[in-house]
Amino acid sequence: MGRIFCAGEYALLYLDRRRKYIVKLEEGKRFHTHKGFIELNQIIGRPEGIVVRSSIGVEFHVFRPSLWDHVEKYERPTQILYPKDIGFIIVYADIGPGCRIIESGVGSGALTSFLAYHVKPTGRIYGYDINPRFIETARRNLERTGLIEYVELKLGDVYKGVDEEDVDAAILDVPSPWLALDSIYKSLRSGGFLVSFSPTINQVEKLVESIETHRGFLVTNILEILTRSYKVKKGETRPETTMIAHTGYLLFARKRVL
Amino acid sequence: MGRIFCAGEYALLYLDRRRKYIVKLEEGKRFHTHKGFIELNQIIGRPEGIVVRSSIGVEFHVFRPSLWDHVEKYERPTQILYPKDIGFIIVYADIGPGCRIIESGVGSGALTSFLAYHVKPTGRIYGYDINPRFIETARRNLERTGLIEYVELKLGDVYKGVDEEDVDAAILDVPSPWLALDSIYKSLRSGGFLVSFSPTINQVEKLVESIETHRGFLVTNILEILTRSYKVKKGETRPETTMIAHTGYLLFARKRVL
Amino acid sequence: MGRIFCAGEYALLYLDRRRKYIVKLEEGKRFHTHKGFIELNQIIGRPEGIVVRSSIGVEFHVFRPSLWDHVEKYERPTQILYPKDIGFIIVYADIGPGCRIIESGVGSGALTSFLAYHVKPTGRIYGYDINPRFIETARRNLERTGLIEYVELKLGDVYKGVDEEDVDAAILDVPSPWLALDSIYKSLRSGGFLVSFSPTINQVEKLVESIETHRGFLVTNILEILTRSYKVKKGETRPETTMIAHTGYLLFARKRVL
Amino acid sequence: MGRIFCAGEYALLYLDRRRKYIVKLEEGKRFHTHKGFIELNQIIGRPEGIVVRSSIGVEFHVFRPSLWDHVEKYERPTQILYPKDIGFIIVYADIGPGCRIIESGVGSGALTSFLAYHVKPTGRIYGYDINPRFIETARRNLERTGLIEYVELKLGDVYKGVDEEDVDAAILDVPSPWLALDSIYKSLRSGGFLVSFSPTINQVEKLVESIETHRGFLVTNILEILTRSYKVKKGETRPETTMIAHTGYLLFARKRVL
Repeated sequence: MGRIFCAGEYALLYLDRRRKYIVKLEEGKRFHTHKGFIELNQIIGRPEGIVVRSSIGVEFHVFRPSLWDHVEKYERPTQILYPKDIGFIIVYADIGPGCRIIESGVGSGALTSFLAYHVKPTGRIYGYDINPRFIETARRNLERTGLIEYVELKLGDVYKGVDEEDVDAAILDVPSPWLALDSIYKSLRSGGFLVSFSPTINQVEKLVESIETHRGFLVTNILEILTRSYKVKKGETRPETTMIAHTGYLLFARKRVL
Repeated sequence: MGRIFCAGEYALLYLDRRRKYIVKLEEGKRFHTHKGFIELNQIIGRPEGIVVRSSIGVEFHVFRPSLWDHVEKYERPTQILYPKDIGFIIVYADIGPGCRIIESGVGSGALTSFLAYHVKPTGRIYGYDINPRFIETARRNLERTGLIEYVELKLGDVYKGVDEEDVDAAILDVPSPWLALDSIYKSLRSGGFLVSFSPTINQVEKLVESIETHRGFLVTNILEILTRSYKVKKGETRPETTMIAHTGYLLFARKRVL
Repeated sequence: MGRIFCAGEYALLYLDRRRKYIVKLEEGKRFHTHKGFIELNQIIGRPEGIVVRSSIGVEFHVFRPSLWDHVEKYERPTQILYPKDIGFIIVYADIGPGCRIIESGVGSGALTSFLAYHVKPTGRIYGYDINPRFIETARRNLERTGLIEYVELKLGDVYKGVDEEDVDAAILDVPSPWLALDSIYKSLRSGGFLVSFSPTINQVEKLVESIETHRGFLVTNILEILTRSYKVKKGETRPETTMIAHTGYLLFARKRVL
Repeated sequence: MGRIFCAGEYALLYLDRRRKYIVKLEEGKRFHTHKGFIELNQIIGRPEGIVVRSSIGVEFHVFRPSLWDHVEKYERPTQILYPKDIGFIIVYADIGPGCRIIESGVGSGALTSFLAYHVKPTGRIYGYDINPRFIETARRNLERTGLIEYVELKLGDVYKGVDEEDVDAAILDVPSPWLALDSIYKSLRSGGFLVSFSPTINQVEKLVESIETHRGFLVTNILEILTRSYKVKKGETRPETTMIAHTGYLLFARKRVL
């Protein structure tokens, strides 16, 4: 039937798609929302999927947060990647149990969390960032989701080099990915995947040019991914009125032997 | 440097984005393409990422096939899901190591392969299909990628019921997903994810209506995912001229306690 | 060089893409914005394309408003159609000088204005609406742009019938377009265009079904149109972050002889 | 009831959305299709909207071709613009009766035809192309649709200058639109519209940069337009599987006074 909620665990309070809250269950505590407060004792000892009522009678569904629920609520000093891009990277760059992966920059640790979740328990993420504040935020976020044990966070500049060798993939979300080509080439195993996420098309163009000069990689795909949500109701079905039109472009390449 | 290719292994011969071949390396054999043949002895004993030349001098890159490279080349008596949808499902339905998942229908086993890859080694996929031919194709495909050991393929009708209980997610790619709601409700743990992939908006609408009547699930997202590929070259950068405009709609829901 | 601005004319004050104002030029008057006020005497007697400064030194470009500039600023008790849909309708339904067109409902008169502009001087728009308030708004809007003389606004229900015969096109933006099929069939010339704009896919589906039963029309195209704006700057070029994901679906059909 | 077809007129024979033919009606003649031949005498003297049968009994609808029907069938030595882009240009650049417009290059005359149709009878299109073959093709196409009388086709290089002054809009579909800025600046009235259509984002970027240096124009919109067609049928409604992902980017600017 699903495990019951214990004190100390996180719960997702779900009002609707835009109003979701993650709360740590503590006995005797209340969680305040703009729709009244919720007595957390209503949740402890009960299973996922229940409905609880706030002090003013508004119903909230209660679930264990998915990893994405957590990540969406991470402290975010930076832009994060979204499921559309994270999922595509995982599938297309062949990321799975046991993989060893370089990531830079880690930013808030959103992608890092999913990489860690999918390479565990034997794989490892080596997460570089030049900003100590981001490293600390990512650490707190990864501790919250229990994934820190699969991640080595490193204050360092991927443009200057990385410590690891023979890694399976390197995922870049940095302003000048072309400056990291030498570092990444040294750290990747032959055939390993280079993935780069860039907000502007100019970054992609410059990266492609640099790869042509460098010759150490074969570009296999350059794309953007769009999601479009729907309101579905008998007789009233239509796409949502607005959508995110752009997050960034993804480039995939594999390491060649020179 | 990456492991060298051994006889008996599969290799990806990559000419360009649309012309890729997977070949089993056998000593002394040749692989014939419309660009001449390739002596496979050129590859055995050498690392990934090399370039080999065909008998008429055309260059092919050689890599170990990614899981997607394999799946793209699966025997396909059915439509398959694509990375855009597979990746989103994996991220959004919280699929990871150790998960136990119902999938129906398995079709050619494309999604099955990725689910198996991401739940292994301790998780399990229970793959139902009513068509014995698809079960056999999926089995061959999953054997090819070594993932069959994480999958139980079952000839059976998800509308009538499934054997498993307390599973973490159920992923439907069936013509009438609403007929499976009772089966799925029984098999899912509380809070578990229902995912449905449907080519027509009518199927989505009918599923949403049926869920409203059934009351056992909370719909959390309905969307479609689009990918748009780019030709990137200094001064000539533009999207590809055509794209896939539609594969299907995705619906995500979580099991409520009734 | 372009005509100079006269008192009594409208001018467009353009700060940026989102902040544009239309002002009637009156001698000695000021126009107040959140960026200070503008002395309108700066504009009268000068040509389009000049830059004027507000009282706090902010620069505004001054142009004659295009028809779309006017329409975008219309009083709008209703949703209006956007250039992407208006332009496609005009091209695809063969609307041009001399055409006689039924439109229902007229709503705020946005589409009406463009239809009038493109059929003038010899064509005519017959604009029906069941809401007297919308008729009055549309009239004020059309007077503002000087297009009222090409439009007959009529309080009436297109489902019950229209007065005109032998019209070239009928454009519906009504909740139940299928109820108008008989009216439209009677009013259109053979081969004339039926165009229907609907926010939901269910309306389109029901209209298609009704047309199949009615048999008086041949459906030639059903589509949606999306626009995606760009920020373009050397080295920083990318799509805008958000976009309108949906306004409505367009259906085009031609009248058959029964 | 609509005018009857006369000998010498063009008729559109419509089998389905992808199979449409334009035929000149000549007494006693047959039109051959891969679905048998059609006796044209079946059409002469009859109204639009009828159905005729080919020699093997296949039904074709018969309509007067719309302007787009004609343009779609034009001789096309070049890529042409599509209704999505043509319609947007007409609406957004304020093109209507009486406008005088520079167009370069005219290519096959597709956009030219729509511009001519919408500025007639008092407006004029000045169509430049450096390729005499395109000029001749455009002339034949425009003669076919009777629009040549509103168009002056000119063999000439817009980069070097144009003859006209005080035009309302200039529409460029040329490889290096930035080279035409001086010519266009001289020929446009103040406040007039510059529109540029470019397949690559690099062209747009370079044009924007050049406009910033030139200072003679204010860029008001840069966008791309996408259309997505639907198959609509009760219970089977979904987007078409493939779509055109890209034709080109549109840039709109207005002439400033320097």
